[in-house]
Amino acid sequence: MHSFIELSKLFEDKFKSRHFPDEPGTLYQPAAYILGIGGKRIRPVCVLMGNQLFNDIDPDAYHAATAIELFHNFSLIHDDIMDKAPLRRGMQTVHEKYGESTALLAGDVMFVKAYEYLNKIRPAMLQKVLYLFNNTASAVCEGQQLDMDFEKRDMVQMGEYVNMITLKTSVLLAASLKLGAILGGAGEGNQNHLYEFGKNLGVAFQVQDDYLDAFGNPEKFGKKVGGDIMANKKTFLMIHAFETANTQQLNELKLLIKNNPADKVEKILQIFKDCKVDDWAQQLKNKYLQTALMHLEETAVLSKRKKPLQELADYLMMRES
Amino acid sequence: MHSFIELSKLFEDKFKSRHFPDEPGTLYQPAAYILGIGGKRIRPVCVLMGNQLFNDIDPDAYHAATAIELFHNFSLIHDDIMDKAPLRRGMQTVHEKYGESTALLAGDVMFVKAYEYLNKIRPAMLQKVLYLFNNTASAVCEGQQLDMDFEKRDMVQMGEYVNMITLKTSVLLAASLKLGAILGGAGEGNQNHLYEFGKNLGVAFQVQDDYLDAFGNPEKFGKKVGGDIMANKKTFLMIHAFETANTQQLNELKLLIKNNPADKVEKILQIFKDCKVDDWAQQLKNKYLQTALMHLEETAVLSKRKKPLQELADYLMMRES
Repeated sequence: MHSFIELSKLFEDKFKSRHFPDEPGTLYQPAAYILGIGGKRIRPVCVLMGNQLFNDIDPDAYHAATAIELFHNFSLIHDDIMDKAPLRRGMQTVHEKYGESTALLAGDVMFVKAYEYLNKIRPAMLQKVLYLFNNTASAVCEGQQLDMDFEKRDMVQMGEYVNMITLKTSVLLAASLKLGAILGGAGEGNQNHLYEFGKNLGVAFQVQDDYLDAFGNPEKFGKKVGGDIMANKKTFLMIHAFETANTQQLNELKLLIKNNPADKVEKILQIFKDCKVDDWAQQLKNKYLQTALMHLEETAVLSKRKKPLQELADYLMMRES
Repeated sequence: MHSFIELSKLFEDKFKSRHFPDEPGTLYQPAAYILGIGGKRIRPVCVLMGNQLFNDIDPDAYHAATAIELFHNFSLIHDDIMDKAPLRRGMQTVHEKYGESTALLAGDVMFVKAYEYLNKIRPAMLQKVLYLFNNTASAVCEGQQLDMDFEKRDMVQMGEYVNMITLKTSVLLAASLKLGAILGGAGEGNQNHLYEFGKNLGVAFQVQDDYLDAFGNPEKFGKKVGGDIMANKKTFLMIHAFETANTQQLNELKLLIKNNPADKVEKILQIFKDCKVDDWAQQLKNKYLQTALMHLEETAVLSKRKKPLQELADYLMMRES
C-alpha cells in the first residue's frame, strides 16, 4: 500500500521517461514540452489508487495511468488553442511557443500515443478499458463544446452547468479511478462506487474553484481573485445569484455585466454576499463531497485500504488532514 | 467476391447510418457535416478488398473500414484548419462553416469515434489491429508536420519528399489494405505484400497528381492547372527540375519563384519541358505502379481474387481498363 504522495512520486519517476521518437523534432519536441512543464498528475495517480484498492499495483495500471495523463495533456493543448490562452502552469502554452498548427498536431499525436499505451494492456482487459476510455474522451469533448456554447449565452441553468462541468472535468477523474479498479479485478458494484466517488469529488472541486475565484485568499489561491467575474463567466456562484437575486439585484447584476465598470468585481461580490451565495457554495461543495465520501464508504474493501483516496479528497479540498 | 464498384456501394450504404448522438448538436452536427459532403471512400473500400482477398467479408472488416474513414475525415478537418482551406469537395470546410474551435473539437471527437468502431472488433484481433492503426495515425501526423516544415524551406531533397508523401498519404492506403488482410486471416508475407502494394500505389498516385497539376487537361483534372506552381509548392516536378536544371535554368527558376511574375506558370512549365521533367514524372509514376503491381503479383492467393485490387489501381491511375 502506498500513500497518495508516494504514488505521485512513483508515477512521476516512470512518467519522466521519453514518450516520443526523435524525429520529426518539429512535432515531438512541442509534445514533450508540455509534459515537461509539470502538472500535479492527479488523474494518473487516481488510476494507481483505484488499482491498489483491490490488489498490488499491476503493470497494466501504469500503462493506463500514462494513457490518462497523455490524454489529459492532449486536451490541455487543444483547449489552450480554443481559449487562446497564453500561459499554462506559468509557462508559454504550446501554440504560443510553436504556433497553432503544430500545437494542434502535437495534441493529435499525443492522443495517438495515449492509445499506444492502452494497447500495452493485457488483451483480456483491453476491450473493457478502451470502452471506458473512449466514452470518457467523447464526454470531455462534449463538455468543452458545451463550455464554449455557454460563453455565447446570457445565462445557463444550474443543471446545464453541472452537466457541463461533469463532462468537462469530473468524468476523467471518475474514469481514472474506475480504470484502476477494472484492472485490479474489482466487481461492478465497487467500480461504480469509485466512479461516483471521483465524479462527485470532481464537482465539489469545481464548486470550490468557483468559490475561491470570488472569495479566496489571493496569496493562497495563486490566481487573481475575481477573474471569473471580470470575464463574465457563468460559475456556480453567478448562476445561483441569478436564481436567487430579487428584481433590483438582478437588474444591477445585468447592468454590471453589460457595462463592465471599474468597481464591477467589488459590486458583484457584494450582491453575492447579499444573496448569501458564499454560504450556499460552501454547503453545495460539502454536499458533493459528502456524496463522494459516501460512495467511498460503500466500496467493499477494508477501510485501511481507502486511506490514500481519503488523502486525495483532503488534498483536493485543501483540508489539513 | 465483389468488384471495387460493388464494394464502394456496399460500404456507402452502411456508412450512411448515424455515427453520432444528437446532443450536443453544436459538436456532432459539424462532425456529421463533413461525412455528408461525400468523398470517394477509397480507404475503407481498401479494407474490404484486403479482407475479401482471403475470405468472405467479415463484419469486423466493416468496423475497421468505418474507423479508417472516420480517421481520414478527422485528419481532413484538422488539415483544413492548418491549411486555412475554405473549401473541401466544393463545399465549405468545417472550420469555415462552424468556426475553428468547433472544427478542432469535432475532429477530436471523430477520432474517438474511430476508436469506438475499432473496439467492436473481436478481442482476439484487437491488439494487432490497434497496433497498426496507432502506428499509421502517428505517421499521418508526422507527414503533415513535415509538409508544413517543407513549406518554410527553400528546397527539399527528393528522398525527403518521398518520405513525407509516404507518411502523409500512402501509409493510410497501405494500412487499410493490411487491416483487411489481418482480419481475413492472411499470413505475414501476404500482409506485407499488400502493404507495399498500397504504399507504392499511393506514391504513384501522388506523382500523377503532381504531374496533372502542371500538365493535366484542366477539364478532366477538375482543378486549375499550375496551382502548385503558383503556390511555390515543392512537388515531384519542381524538386526534379531543381536537381536537373543547368545554371541558367536554375537562376531563372529561382527568380520566377521569388518575383511571381504574371507569366510565372507558363515560364516554369517551359523549364519543366526543357528539363524533360514531364517524361521523367511519367516514368517515375510507372516505376512506383510497377512495384505496386509486383507486390500484388507476389501475394499468394488465386489471381482471380486480385481483380478488384487491379481495378483500384486502374481507377487511381485513371486508366481505362
